[in-house]
Amino acid sequence: MKCVFGIDIGGTDIKIGKFYNDELVLKTSIKTNRSDDGIHIFPDIFKKIDELLGDDILEGIGVGVPGPVLENSIVSSKNLGWDKINILEIIKNKYPNIAISLLNDANAAAVGEMIRGGAVGYHSFIFITLGTGIGGGIIIDDELIEGNTGSAGEIGHIRVGFNNERLCKCGLFDCVEQYSSATGIVHTANILRLNRETKLNEVEVTSKNIFDYAKLGDEVALEAVNSLVEKLSTALAAVTNTVNPEAIVVGGGVSKAGDFLIDRLEKRFNELCFFSVRGTKFALAKLGNDAGMYGTNYMVRKKLNAN
Amino acid sequence: MKCVFGIDIGGTDIKIGKFYNDELVLKTSIKTNRSDDGIHIFPDIFKKIDELLGDDILEGIGVGVPGPVLENSIVSSKNLGWDKINILEIIKNKYPNIAISLLNDANAAAVGEMIRGGAVGYHSFIFITLGTGIGGGIIIDDELIEGNTGSAGEIGHIRVGFNNERLCKCGLFDCVEQYSSATGIVHTANILRLNRETKLNEVEVTSKNIFDYAKLGDEVALEAVNSLVEKLSTALAAVTNTVNPEAIVVGGGVSKAGDFLIDRLEKRFNELCFFSVRGTKFALAKLGNDAGMYGTNYMVRKKLNAN
Repeated sequence: MKCVFGIDIGGTDIKIGKFYNDELVLKTSIKTNRSDDGIHIFPDIFKKIDELLGDDILEGIGVGVPGPVLENSIVSSKNLGWDKINILEIIKNKYPNIAISLLNDANAAAVGEMIRGGAVGYHSFIFITLGTGIGGGIIIDDELIEGNTGSAGEIGHIRVGFNNERLCKCGLFDCVEQYSSATGIVHTANILRLNRETKLNEVEVTSKNIFDYAKLGDEVALEAVNSLVEKLSTALAAVTNTVNPEAIVVGGGVSKAGDFLIDRLEKRFNELCFFSVRGTKFALAKLGNDAGMYGTNYMVRKKLNAN
Repeated sequence: MKCVFGIDIGGTDIKIGKFYNDELVLKTSIKTNRSDDGIHIFPDIFKKIDELLGDDILEGIGVGVPGPVLENSIVSSKNLGWDKINILEIIKNKYPNIAISLLNDANAAAVGEMIRGGAVGYHSFIFITLGTGIGGGIIIDDELIEGNTGSAGEIGHIRVGFNNERLCKCGLFDCVEQYSSATGIVHTANILRLNRETKLNEVEVTSKNIFDYAKLGDEVALEAVNSLVEKLSTALAAVTNTVNPEAIVVGGGVSKAGDFLIDRLEKRFNELCFFSVRGTKFALAKLGNDAGMYGTNYMVRKKLNAN
């Protein structure tokens, strides 16, 4: 049978999915080998593809990468040790006659959520993924906005502070990612719990623990959640004032906190956004780690169908 | 000859332009009569249109209004005293068989700048108008982004402060409009000049005077300009991180400060935006008060050509 591989390259592992049309029929993941400037990454992926391909015919490969990326462009990703690599060429050298699609990883997840996740039914939405960092994707009229340099949806680097409090890995101060990601809320909680009575002084301070104890009424944990919500709502209001979507779809590890997070986010967002975008819907992402694979598969199929 | 009227309704006056195809052949302006909940506004406009029409045939009317607006929708504009008026119906009652296009005023100006102003040559850009308030419009792939409730591009209401310092007319605190509009910089200068030696204590404190004295090296005036730049760059970085356009086009009364403003804005913007959107072009708008008329005319013609 004809098949497409949807691949999501992350800093720690690489998700590889085999698709018959829109159906994910096989999936696996391998560790990301970032040594030697990331030169092993594609050979590792190709080996796994060849293994999983079996007697099927490879029609295309879609790849999501952590970094700005434009179709057919040279990609740099400090996260992966890559400095200006031409992914298209690398894949074409190995598989000369297939369709290839390259996407930023958060954009790939946004597309995945659009076609069969939490954004089904919406034609324009902001996707935001709250993990170690914060990524985003913007969909307008069912189309992904990639931007002039492949950087649309870089919501995580919106400035939400003016006191140069937290230095971001990107070199800027007070990016929302420093407050509202999993790492950000842990940072906040570690400041708040000093000399306070809180369960967080008895356990490992993780995003999950903070939310779990906040749900149980722990005051310090609640303050940490509120701080995450305040900064994230501010950034989401800025984005919504800009593109005025139907919905905001929230994914990533932190979104496992579920309605406890979403309800607070929605409430504060509605207090902070311009009056005419009030009522923007909030929804949880549904595909988890599979979103990127679905998204890249979809983009490859779109190319195949266009030909 | 066949003609279209492009109309830009503002809080103090209404610009009315008569177009043969893309050429503005006649223009005038009338005062905005906001009394009686703005019910005189359209009769006043119709009277002027009939006057200017002469022997020509009216093919269409395009209208820009200060407030969120969707094609064919009911429009509210506190600025004009309107509460949910159906502009389409009002115009159709008077001129039954013409093409009609409704736009937000900043969006209309963005379209105007796109087709023959400061944005010519760019396919995606942010337009921002710095006047009494701050308005904006987002163009991606040569198309205006209107948004789900006609509110895309409401850049003026991006939050750029966390201390509830300045209450905006919209009800929120610390909207960028409160710092970086003509009104905003006057507010800032009035705070800064207290007990300081500055030319601004000898003249009327207007946006123009502040820029003029800043250019001459007046320290307080320069501080006021820098404050405007800091807040506006922050908002523009947020918008650019979101849609990653080719360019940012700056219009409105404050933009008359020219390169003195643009150079500072571009410098600080590049320090505050995400690395991969650095280098976004900055340009001055070119059409001034005519931008809205050009934009609404263009949108009507687009409709006429589609039929």
